[in-house]
Amino acid sequence: MDLSRVAIVLVEPQEPGNVGAAARAMANMGLSRLILVRPVGHLDSPARRMAIGGRKILEEAEVCASLGEALEGFTFVVGTTRREGNARSEKLSPRAAAEEIAGLSPRNELAILFGREDRGLTNREIERCQRIVTVPTAVGKASLNLAQAVLIVAYELFLAVDEKAALFLPPPERKLAPHPKVEQMYEHMERALLRIGYLQEENPRRMMGRFRKIFGRAGLNEGEVQALRGVFHQVEWYVRSKTARSDRGDG
Amino acid sequence: MDLSRVAIVLVEPQEPGNVGAAARAMANMGLSRLILVRPVGHLDSPARRMAIGGRKILEEAEVCASLGEALEGFTFVVGTTRREGNARSEKLSPRAAAEEIAGLSPRNELAILFGREDRGLTNREIERCQRIVTVPTAVGKASLNLAQAVLIVAYELFLAVDEKAALFLPPPERKLAPHPKVEQMYEHMERALLRIGYLQEENPRRMMGRFRKIFGRAGLNEGEVQALRGVFHQVEWYVRSKTARSDRGDG
Repeated sequence: MDLSRVAIVLVEPQEPGNVGAAARAMANMGLSRLILVRPVGHLDSPARRMAIGGRKILEEAEVCASLGEALEGFTFVVGTTRREGNARSEKLSPRAAAEEIAGLSPRNELAILFGREDRGLTNREIERCQRIVTVPTAVGKASLNLAQAVLIVAYELFLAVDEKAALFLPPPERKLAPHPKVEQMYEHMERALLRIGYLQEENPRRMMGRFRKIFGRAGLNEGEVQALRGVFHQVEWYVRSKTARSDRGDG
Repeated sequence: MDLSRVAIVLVEPQEPGNVGAAARAMANMGLSRLILVRPVGHLDSPARRMAIGGRKILEEAEVCASLGEALEGFTFVVGTTRREGNARSEKLSPRAAAEEIAGLSPRNELAILFGREDRGLTNREIERCQRIVTVPTAVGKASLNLAQAVLIVAYELFLAVDEKAALFLPPPERKLAPHPKVEQMYEHMERALLRIGYLQEENPRRMMGRFRKIFGRAGLNEGEVQALRGVFHQVEWYVRSKTARSDRGDG
């Protein structure tokens, strides 16, 4: 088992030094795939200086214009946050998350998201994640910086994989659906639920957030995404057929 | 149990930024006592800038002229190293060391030593230690920097002292819905999907089995069961309203 399918995704990192330090942390912990969404000067000298053994990772980092682009091809997305809030209630420790990720890693493409230095991830970005991780820290203290958070998560992953290898546990045979397909399913679901009047046009976000949580916890494979889309497709078909018929009838 | 009796001792740190980042890591992990042996410019602006929430720790750091002076009053000294060598053969992981330190902390004064950025601790300094700790890293990769090593060790200490922090697993408050309510939801779902023609009357079992798997993995709480029933209810309502209208239209 290895960590080559686990990517670290930094969303809009503002300080080149942090990106370099994150790359160094990754190199130490056996991670190699770094994805940057709209980074600032990630190849500038402060970044290179901090990267040391992670310089190759830094130089080969994939740069994306949007999070959606960054997450194409991934099947399991983990968000990191230090903030509190409703949508962020079910949090895992890095250790618990690492256990799960290690189990999924042989058959899935996994992304771990880290937000901006000052503001973290947005609510909308958090919604895309199947799991939320928070690094535990002493109460009331300042938070970790970006590279420190990457280090802790990467360290736990490294130990989880090592331990698993030692214990030789068979990994769960679950290959999850690619991230964009799951997002398309949510869009489809939203359209269908709007059509039958279940969601209010104004604010479908809250209820959709609820369903996202359910399916996020479940972890859908591609066949299941198809099955669910089949339901929404049928709802839309039903609405169309009835609307057409009743239009004919009324007219 | 607390960590107020555990001191971090940095031996001849050369880069002020590292000392600041180490102080920040300490603050996050509930450590507060920092001792510096012959530091270089540890109150300079790069150090303060990196310290953030650890600034007080940085400013109150005790500065010593020798390691002997620094270790006066301590009863248990742990050295950190990444180097190999005879005198360094019996190494502990940070996790194992943290367990031991946490156990000793109520009745002992404990110091954890970190060496110079470039050369670590000397053999003579290592000899003074009752335990040697090495942060595990991927084979053949560059080492962690000083502040990163401090962070990992402090993080493990924090978790060893505060077990709850290590494992805030799927939140303990998760109370799942009673079995009969979940079964009623599946029945409701089946009726709704039959009404819109998604399921075939003859054998809805196979598809329903698929949905059962998804929701079974997710583990639904009572509110979520209600939310899903709301969807099926709305589907049935929609079907009834359209059927009535088109009946009127056709008739």
